[in-house]
Amino acid sequence: MSAASSTTAVPMAASPSAARPRPCAGCTEDVISWIRVPSAVREQYLKIKASGLKLQLCTNETQATRENFVRKLRAMGFDISVAEVTAPAPAACRLLKERGLRPHLLVHDDLVPEFAEIDKTNPNCVVLGDAAENFTYANLNEAFRLLIGMEKPVLISLGKGRYYKETDGLKLDVGAYMKALEYACDVQAEVVGKPAKRFFESALAELGVPPEQAIMIGDDIVNDVGGAQQCGMRALQVRTGKYRSTPRGPCHQGCCAVTGKATSSDGTGFLLQPWQKWCH
Amino acid sequence: MSAASSTTAVPMAASPSAARPRPCAGCTEDVISWIRVPSAVREQYLKIKASGLKLQLCTNETQATRENFVRKLRAMGFDISVAEVTAPAPAACRLLKERGLRPHLLVHDDLVPEFAEIDKTNPNCVVLGDAAENFTYANLNEAFRLLIGMEKPVLISLGKGRYYKETDGLKLDVGAYMKALEYACDVQAEVVGKPAKRFFESALAELGVPPEQAIMIGDDIVNDVGGAQQCGMRALQVRTGKYRSTPRGPCHQGCCAVTGKATSSDGTGFLLQPWQKWCH
Repeated sequence: MSAASSTTAVPMAASPSAARPRPCAGCTEDVISWIRVPSAVREQYLKIKASGLKLQLCTNETQATRENFVRKLRAMGFDISVAEVTAPAPAACRLLKERGLRPHLLVHDDLVPEFAEIDKTNPNCVVLGDAAENFTYANLNEAFRLLIGMEKPVLISLGKGRYYKETDGLKLDVGAYMKALEYACDVQAEVVGKPAKRFFESALAELGVPPEQAIMIGDDIVNDVGGAQQCGMRALQVRTGKYRSTPRGPCHQGCCAVTGKATSSDGTGFLLQPWQKWCH
Repeated sequence: MSAASSTTAVPMAASPSAARPRPCAGCTEDVISWIRVPSAVREQYLKIKASGLKLQLCTNETQATRENFVRKLRAMGFDISVAEVTAPAPAACRLLKERGLRPHLLVHDDLVPEFAEIDKTNPNCVVLGDAAENFTYANLNEAFRLLIGMEKPVLISLGKGRYYKETDGLKLDVGAYMKALEYACDVQAEVVGKPAKRFFESALAELGVPPEQAIMIGDDIVNDVGGAQQCGMRALQVRTGKYRSTPRGPCHQGCCAVTGKATSSDGTGFLLQPWQKWCH
């Protein structure tokens, strides 16, 4: 899968430079929109960088390694490093190591290298990502049988998104398959991607700012906006990508700014206004 | 799929003959067990029939038409007619006609003839069965896109079973895929198979007895036992087929008789004892 066809939301969190005591901000746009208006988005991206705000891309991308993901973005003209990307697979690897878990992977082929250093013999848990074409009847049954055969089934999901948009239409995301396995095995998955609190905490740690000085922007009301708010951040929803008018979903902490017809440039302009103008 | 490899639970409800004022009773055994001990199960089946108890098979089988299902059972020596089988697909067809719904079918190929008389042009709902190998990534995305594109998505599920057992192991049942679509589309499916109340009411109507005079026997604590109890019937769980020691699940109306190590013959013997001995 190329970055051009991936539509995983790629939110960016931003923090102020030391010289410019402004609130942190974030901006998101899904890659499909970047492809449609690459020069406009690149322009907005550069505007935010030039403003002194720090950016951190918080992605639930689980169809490519971070290295490949960054390589594709760089090829599109975005000056970004792996350290500026927070993604679920590295978080899952940390969790697996901490708890001595050996995963059976039901993930996209291109994500497998992220787990190269993880012992996968005699699995005692299942790690679920957006496996796309690997979500076959046989593969789902295999993951199910492993889980149902465990005394205490452990299901780790790299996200809980409902669906996402690709060039050929909407597609079921990992969350739908997570629900299927949760129901069949009577277990609750541990989510390591958005909207998990520790995922956003990890992004904030990379930025070196507390949550109240960061803004999350995304098109997903639950995974982007809700997750960030649960973590103490403010959030902005843009009405692009997979955005739909209903349901609005949770607005946990009183600052869910949904723009009227936000585009990437509207969103960025919004961010660069004085704090009081958009934080209500 | 042959009956020999199908493991959908096939509960039987039974009622007394007019000449023998005994409580109605039911018995279930999954087909895989029938294959393993065909002569023993046939013997128990004949014993119940000879006792004067009426039998009604309540199956969530959605991998074959009722006609094919009965044909396979008759080939195995069971003297049974289509009228003695209550199944989800005919119930779904009644519902579709009543409400003027035109389904997109995500079901097993062998079940499609059940919907021969139903208008399927320009679908305004999705009917989900145990599609088995038809549960492909592409087919699930297609069903999802249809649902998410509807103003008020209507998802009709022919069952909500978690999993079932086949000769090559446990497999995810329709309920798991139903949960996936429910989550992705933020809808609640309408279940027309077990454990839906109207499904059991339909079986009781076929038997011509009130629920308090019928007994349901099954290996599924939710779909067989729980569903029947919700309908006012007593129920007996046999520890065969897909039975697992946990969770026990709901026992709604105070009469969930779970035998110690019930086999099909134990279960039948149990039924033929005086009422007071097993109803506690």
